[in-house]
Amino acid sequence: MQFFSDNAAPACPQVMEAIASANRQDRPYDSDRSSKELDGAFSTLFGIEVRVLWVSTGTAANALGLAALCPPHGAILCHQQAHIQEDECGAPEFYTHGAKLLTCPGEGAKLTPEAARKVLATVRDDVHQVRPSALSITNANEYGLVYTPDEIAALGELCRERGLGFHMDGARFANAVAYLDGDPADVTWRAGVDVLSFGFVKNGGMIGEALVFFRPELAAETAYRRKRGGHLLSKGRYLAAQILAMLKDGLWLANARSANAAAALLGTAAGSRCLYPVQANEVFIRVSSDEAARLRAGGFDFYDWGDGAVRMVTSWHHRAEDVQPLADAIAAL
Amino acid sequence: MQFFSDNAAPACPQVMEAIASANRQDRPYDSDRSSKELDGAFSTLFGIEVRVLWVSTGTAANALGLAALCPPHGAILCHQQAHIQEDECGAPEFYTHGAKLLTCPGEGAKLTPEAARKVLATVRDDVHQVRPSALSITNANEYGLVYTPDEIAALGELCRERGLGFHMDGARFANAVAYLDGDPADVTWRAGVDVLSFGFVKNGGMIGEALVFFRPELAAETAYRRKRGGHLLSKGRYLAAQILAMLKDGLWLANARSANAAAALLGTAAGSRCLYPVQANEVFIRVSSDEAARLRAGGFDFYDWGDGAVRMVTSWHHRAEDVQPLADAIAAL
Amino acid sequence: MQFFSDNAAPACPQVMEAIASANRQDRPYDSDRSSKELDGAFSTLFGIEVRVLWVSTGTAANALGLAALCPPHGAILCHQQAHIQEDECGAPEFYTHGAKLLTCPGEGAKLTPEAARKVLATVRDDVHQVRPSALSITNANEYGLVYTPDEIAALGELCRERGLGFHMDGARFANAVAYLDGDPADVTWRAGVDVLSFGFVKNGGMIGEALVFFRPELAAETAYRRKRGGHLLSKGRYLAAQILAMLKDGLWLANARSANAAAALLGTAAGSRCLYPVQANEVFIRVSSDEAARLRAGGFDFYDWGDGAVRMVTSWHHRAEDVQPLADAIAAL
Amino acid sequence: MQFFSDNAAPACPQVMEAIASANRQDRPYDSDRSSKELDGAFSTLFGIEVRVLWVSTGTAANALGLAALCPPHGAILCHQQAHIQEDECGAPEFYTHGAKLLTCPGEGAKLTPEAARKVLATVRDDVHQVRPSALSITNANEYGLVYTPDEIAALGELCRERGLGFHMDGARFANAVAYLDGDPADVTWRAGVDVLSFGFVKNGGMIGEALVFFRPELAAETAYRRKRGGHLLSKGRYLAAQILAMLKDGLWLANARSANAAAALLGTAAGSRCLYPVQANEVFIRVSSDEAARLRAGGFDFYDWGDGAVRMVTSWHHRAEDVQPLADAIAAL
Repeated sequence: MQFFSDNAAPACPQVMEAIASANRQDRPYDSDRSSKELDGAFSTLFGIEVRVLWVSTGTAANALGLAALCPPHGAILCHQQAHIQEDECGAPEFYTHGAKLLTCPGEGAKLTPEAARKVLATVRDDVHQVRPSALSITNANEYGLVYTPDEIAALGELCRERGLGFHMDGARFANAVAYLDGDPADVTWRAGVDVLSFGFVKNGGMIGEALVFFRPELAAETAYRRKRGGHLLSKGRYLAAQILAMLKDGLWLANARSANAAAALLGTAAGSRCLYPVQANEVFIRVSSDEAARLRAGGFDFYDWGDGAVRMVTSWHHRAEDVQPLADAIAAL
Repeated sequence: MQFFSDNAAPACPQVMEAIASANRQDRPYDSDRSSKELDGAFSTLFGIEVRVLWVSTGTAANALGLAALCPPHGAILCHQQAHIQEDECGAPEFYTHGAKLLTCPGEGAKLTPEAARKVLATVRDDVHQVRPSALSITNANEYGLVYTPDEIAALGELCRERGLGFHMDGARFANAVAYLDGDPADVTWRAGVDVLSFGFVKNGGMIGEALVFFRPELAAETAYRRKRGGHLLSKGRYLAAQILAMLKDGLWLANARSANAAAALLGTAAGSRCLYPVQANEVFIRVSSDEAARLRAGGFDFYDWGDGAVRMVTSWHHRAEDVQPLADAIAAL
Repeated sequence: MQFFSDNAAPACPQVMEAIASANRQDRPYDSDRSSKELDGAFSTLFGIEVRVLWVSTGTAANALGLAALCPPHGAILCHQQAHIQEDECGAPEFYTHGAKLLTCPGEGAKLTPEAARKVLATVRDDVHQVRPSALSITNANEYGLVYTPDEIAALGELCRERGLGFHMDGARFANAVAYLDGDPADVTWRAGVDVLSFGFVKNGGMIGEALVFFRPELAAETAYRRKRGGHLLSKGRYLAAQILAMLKDGLWLANARSANAAAALLGTAAGSRCLYPVQANEVFIRVSSDEAARLRAGGFDFYDWGDGAVRMVTSWHHRAEDVQPLADAIAAL
Repeated sequence: MQFFSDNAAPACPQVMEAIASANRQDRPYDSDRSSKELDGAFSTLFGIEVRVLWVSTGTAANALGLAALCPPHGAILCHQQAHIQEDECGAPEFYTHGAKLLTCPGEGAKLTPEAARKVLATVRDDVHQVRPSALSITNANEYGLVYTPDEIAALGELCRERGLGFHMDGARFANAVAYLDGDPADVTWRAGVDVLSFGFVKNGGMIGEALVFFRPELAAETAYRRKRGGHLLSKGRYLAAQILAMLKDGLWLANARSANAAAALLGTAAGSRCLYPVQANEVFIRVSSDEAARLRAGGFDFYDWGDGAVRMVTSWHHRAEDVQPLADAIAAL
């Protein structure tokens, strides 16, 4: 049983069925029936008119979303441990044509308005410095923490005040919404978010993320950038079909709830060993290397996270009975 | 029955099975078992050591391949109707960071050494002009014509002589090899090709093309560019599995032979209406708009190709009995 | 006496004096007194409110001007022999982040609305192709021909109709206006031009061109791009001072008239040997290589222009008595 | 008397004379006599074969130099207050096509091997992160501090060890060498520096910096990038002439010594008010806003530097008798 990444999980049965159903002749690129349903499906979900483009990776979604908000001579505020800063090999820089990421410190990889303001205060308003143009947060974030509607709204307020576009990296958006058990609108457009990378691959999808524009006018330019980036798949219907299947009957939430529940089980077992509260599907646990070795000897796999810690990630397919043995092993340390 | 694009075809059964088999837990990105087999499988196929990266689109494969061969201040020679020039929204310019495409005229979208030399002769060797750095051909090409080993070797010779990297857009590589009925090595590295975009999606795949480096040292940098372009899929194993399935037992050739045979049937029916010899899976036919309308009324769909012509594309799933009715309708015009 | 380039000429006395006068302590970058006068001086000259940025080269002016009008996924229409296409090593591609130049044929390097429309007609309105976004002409052009106000207005009309930004490469703008003997407004904003690269270096300046925005709102973004391109000189006052000196008392026109007169003298001497009418300060003459050698033996230097032709360029410092010997030598061939 | 920037100073007499002497007909771009002498002059100065390109700004020199050392998917280590990070509007990102700057903390804007190693230790060696490719320091630096040969050699050793290109921003290189009173080779190539932006504008030049390649093979590509960036001035001889005049008879050192001496005078007057030891030509002084106002009332101009500090910069033209009144005023505070 592996817990090193939700990317390691298989695709869920409904997604596999959707792919099978999509396996017929249809129009190429995004002119097929499924792709054409996306705008409507997401508009319904969010209760506001949105425009949606599928892409094949979260990195592409993030980079395209940021490029829609930030010019080449602009800057993007984010946490110093944000995925866009640490794990995308400069994709935001590539798609924005060289914008700068201005990184902010903060506990648990959470960006606060205070930290952002502090960084903004160091930026002069002249052509010798890049111009702050966007702000990006990850929800649920890199340490499995979830921003609440109020926290996001405070950042949204800052964005409005300073003329920043607001992007959310939602690779684990479903886990965040499942944790909050609220309306997805409250953590996005109602809180000021302009563009959302809505992830499905970590949550039971195979290939296909949705780039959601709450400012629909941004989508047309991005459609060009998507093609130019090599991200307009010729058989896009297989992506659209997966995404529609995930939206149907709240499957995206159900999958995320399973993953969150599995993580909660581990978090409870770990108790005070947890580096952060377990809110979504990631659990960071303080263990010695001996202890880690013992867990691995028990057949569990996970990443080391430096300095006597490990990361365990659960996913939609981890049922309680799959996770219990690991929870027990942790508790027994 | 639709003939407007091979992108419209479904994925073939073996590909669907491969995807189902890949649907288990495995390492993310390209560290899974299938991805790791690619280098070996293609090295065997081509009889030389190659390095292979999967990507999700042909446009990404082309743009990444060209970026490996051409600096930002370089130029890429290609036919003026090449897909990279006409249909990729500037993806080569994006990935090369602004290289220029120097386009050459030529019958049937075929690039000849003579046409290339003529364009090269207009380029001065000074810093005021971009420096010719690569040459790209499409095989089978945009009009369904196939370059023979000798034709490619002549271009390869030109490349060696002038220090140009040699790229082949093989979105329909399988159709070309099936038509030639020869060794894939003869139309690639033995003829001087450095990088091949080996297409599978138009030939029965769902998502996944192979970028093949006959100069393996180019792959390492490209792996960074791939990630940076948002093309390192987190569940890459589904792409690798498809590609391996296509290579297994020559499925890629069998599929291409089916498509080519279907096209040949249409070509024979069209006779002198054909704009170009039918070699691969594309048929360009001279018909009046009345005639086109009559064919469409018969239930056949295809693209207009301007000026009294239409394009019909066959694919792996067009069996003779599917195509015969259209052939009959064409013959009856 | 050299006639190979107006770049080879010295700076004129008034420019040298202006530089000497500017050689005192003043604010850095473009916050000095001279730089601040530019907007006003050019607004007066053109009879409309403009915004002006100095840059050190015509290539920088062109590339920055085009970047203000064309997105990375856009295309710029120009003549196939335009300087921006042939002689700037891809600077427009660099500053636009990879836009494509769509080149049009045409006699004497002149772009006609008909030729532009023909190229535009080949562009589909979909994301697979770059989107035509700007049109650029050179006035006076690469063959010393001058666009009249009516010709420019016809192109301006096309731009309005098709939503294209209109850029003019005015490396030899002074020579064009001197030839037309009209109002500079008539060949620029009144005819629909949005951005002008107003050249001074070829016309008696040392270093410094003016990028003139007839749509002032484009200047603010460009100021960032200028800095980012390394073109915000720390002692910009020396550029501003030169430009102001050139505008003072119509020096720019007087210099251009001298150059044009010198060229006219050569053109008259060459008679039917001229490849193009001599309108500005460039003369293209049909001569055998023997004849060219004879002229060179007489102490005159100029560029070969391929195929039995040579190019002679006059400049502000060529007085009639300097040029007459060459005119005589040409007439005597 | 202004002390806010050495960019505010006039050009020195020898530079003005050199410009006047260059004001004759000569070959355009960099094919004139002066430009051709640069390689030789700098090779002599440094005692090793170098290749040199003039450019018009320090920002262009830095960005081109870094682009020669770092690919788009690379990273450049520098101090968090480095000019390339703080004051160039992302020019390094523009010219490298989106590389990332990895910034290090450190007293007085000095980069230490320890700080660099600490940042390097956080970078994983995989394609998800940009690859450290270059390291850049400023000498004399942003706070007027000078790196000694040993300090530079230690960084050079780190670069060799980690495969990093080593760039030096020498906007005030002359001030550093004047302070050290040593061989310029000892603070450059002998210590491992690959590329130097050798500044002249802040040191009595008008327009023109030298980009010096201690690895000559890097220059050829950079010549293309320079043109592409719009930095190949058509009358480059005026830049080359200035630079040659500065090298002649050690004028660059004499000018720097004057500036340093003036700064030393101020530093001595300021005593313990100095934020940093005064080594080059910048003096940072702790003063209350009242005190700053009093100094300004005395006719002295300088920049506020936040938090009760001001920056005073001296330059080649500040003679002791010009500076003494300010020194007295400071001492009298």
